[in-house]
Amino acid sequence: MLFYELIDILGTIAFTISGVLIAMEKRLDLFGVVIIAFVTAIGGGTLRDLLIGNVPVVWMRDLTYVITILSTVVFAIVFVNQLKYFRKSLFLFDTIGIGLYTMVGIEKGLQAELQPIICIALGTITASFGGVIRDILCNEIPVIFRKEIYATACIVGGAFYFLLLQFPIQEAYAYSAGILVVITIRLLAVKLGIRLPNIYKEKST
Amino acid sequence: MLFYELIDILGTIAFTISGVLIAMEKRLDLFGVVIIAFVTAIGGGTLRDLLIGNVPVVWMRDLTYVITILSTVVFAIVFVNQLKYFRKSLFLFDTIGIGLYTMVGIEKGLQAELQPIICIALGTITASFGGVIRDILCNEIPVIFRKEIYATACIVGGAFYFLLLQFPIQEAYAYSAGILVVITIRLLAVKLGIRLPNIYKEKST
Amino acid sequence: MLFYELIDILGTIAFTISGVLIAMEKRLDLFGVVIIAFVTAIGGGTLRDLLIGNVPVVWMRDLTYVITILSTVVFAIVFVNQLKYFRKSLFLFDTIGIGLYTMVGIEKGLQAELQPIICIALGTITASFGGVIRDILCNEIPVIFRKEIYATACIVGGAFYFLLLQFPIQEAYAYSAGILVVITIRLLAVKLGIRLPNIYKEKST
Repeated sequence: MLFYELIDILGTIAFTISGVLIAMEKRLDLFGVVIIAFVTAIGGGTLRDLLIGNVPVVWMRDLTYVITILSTVVFAIVFVNQLKYFRKSLFLFDTIGIGLYTMVGIEKGLQAELQPIICIALGTITASFGGVIRDILCNEIPVIFRKEIYATACIVGGAFYFLLLQFPIQEAYAYSAGILVVITIRLLAVKLGIRLPNIYKEKST
Repeated sequence: MLFYELIDILGTIAFTISGVLIAMEKRLDLFGVVIIAFVTAIGGGTLRDLLIGNVPVVWMRDLTYVITILSTVVFAIVFVNQLKYFRKSLFLFDTIGIGLYTMVGIEKGLQAELQPIICIALGTITASFGGVIRDILCNEIPVIFRKEIYATACIVGGAFYFLLLQFPIQEAYAYSAGILVVITIRLLAVKLGIRLPNIYKEKST
Repeated sequence: MLFYELIDILGTIAFTISGVLIAMEKRLDLFGVVIIAFVTAIGGGTLRDLLIGNVPVVWMRDLTYVITILSTVVFAIVFVNQLKYFRKSLFLFDTIGIGLYTMVGIEKGLQAELQPIICIALGTITASFGGVIRDILCNEIPVIFRKEIYATACIVGGAFYFLLLQFPIQEAYAYSAGILVVITIRLLAVKLGIRLPNIYKEKST
């Protein structure tokens, strides 16, 4: 599982940096930056753990996350002017992180013996609610509610995983396929500028 | 309990539709609309279940809610222009839903052997915090903190239920009476335009 | 423990009043004021209890908090015009409350056999997240993310406590020292007008 752990850490780093950048745009102080970074990286998994009763939540039991996040925050603040050169790498980590987090959430749901549709919801929460909580704390309407195919990628990837499980296929293949589908959809959506349709309501006067 | 289940579903539908309408006013994308609808319908019960440790939370164990909400979202989006003709029916479902949700929350509190005042708080949370979370996600100060006798109806109805329990009266009657009091207060308040008093503070300069 | 319980109640009162004042500035109605007061006073401890699985959360099991908060809200609304004369006392209670809440959170973390760094995080959450949730509900970016040495005081005090535990010193002394450090840093920071540095990012165009 060394590979997955590596991706997990890279994903955490990418989420942390995205939190730092947004907190700095909002001109928060150092504590604010640390909290927003933290929440972006572990908010989704924390909400998932609370909902299924998996407490104390995971980052309290495994210090890897806390250490990774704190180191990344220091690094990001020091090298903030250089970070723009890594924008593409960061986006890639972030996208890989989403794919992995989705499947991690689904696994936790299966361990709790929940239905597939609930597992997919848990996967999506794991991957995307860190960003939702970050946006709420920064007093913004969460960006994934407005203009990104992000959660949709998680949902489709998760559904694909459960579809594959209907066939005589090894679980590890289905798992990897789920991750790949999430990543592919997200990459394609960003590359092609695809967004979910807005569903406008006639303005009432 | 068929009657209560029916009301529960009607309440869920009404809450879901209110979420869809508000999310569309905010011009969220499809995912945003689904999440806001979901949170409006099950946010209060979820917070209640988290606070008393009733996990995995109820909508994860009983798919009725998820299926009802998703179907309602599809329906509401398709028939959005027709919804205005059902405004009164929706308001009625919503009000009945509040009454029922209040007593459901109180029951859960009693099962957890909590004090009456805490049970009333749980009932109020069940009935009203879906809307609170919805408003936070939409970047608004929750509407029930500002201008509606909504939570107050839940509190009075819950208190009335516990008052009735002091008398030699069947629990089912007290339960139904609690629901009716919530509904009556809410209907009267809206019909008569009653609001809770604002308590103004002199403006500091 | 009579002394600690007294401080606990004074801290709760101070937090409640700060919630009432902010809710009234936002011109919320009576229910809004009660909820914001409540959330300010018990939000941090509630989040802590949820994260470590200590449910039903503490204010549901011990009515002292609910009674203290409700009485304080009534008192604060009635005497709102006199409150300004007690601004200094309130600030003192608030600061003492933060010190105590920090150590209460740390104790809960130790009881759950968590690592020191996680315990410090729990102490900080206990002391400061009531204010964070209050600010979110009032649609503000939380004030402690922007301009106060508040959480920093909790973190330093908590770290000092664990440092002292490395030496052959009675736990009660270390506990009290932790509280005193939190209080001292907070008082000094406010008196001297110290803030955490903002870390500005070059504006992107």
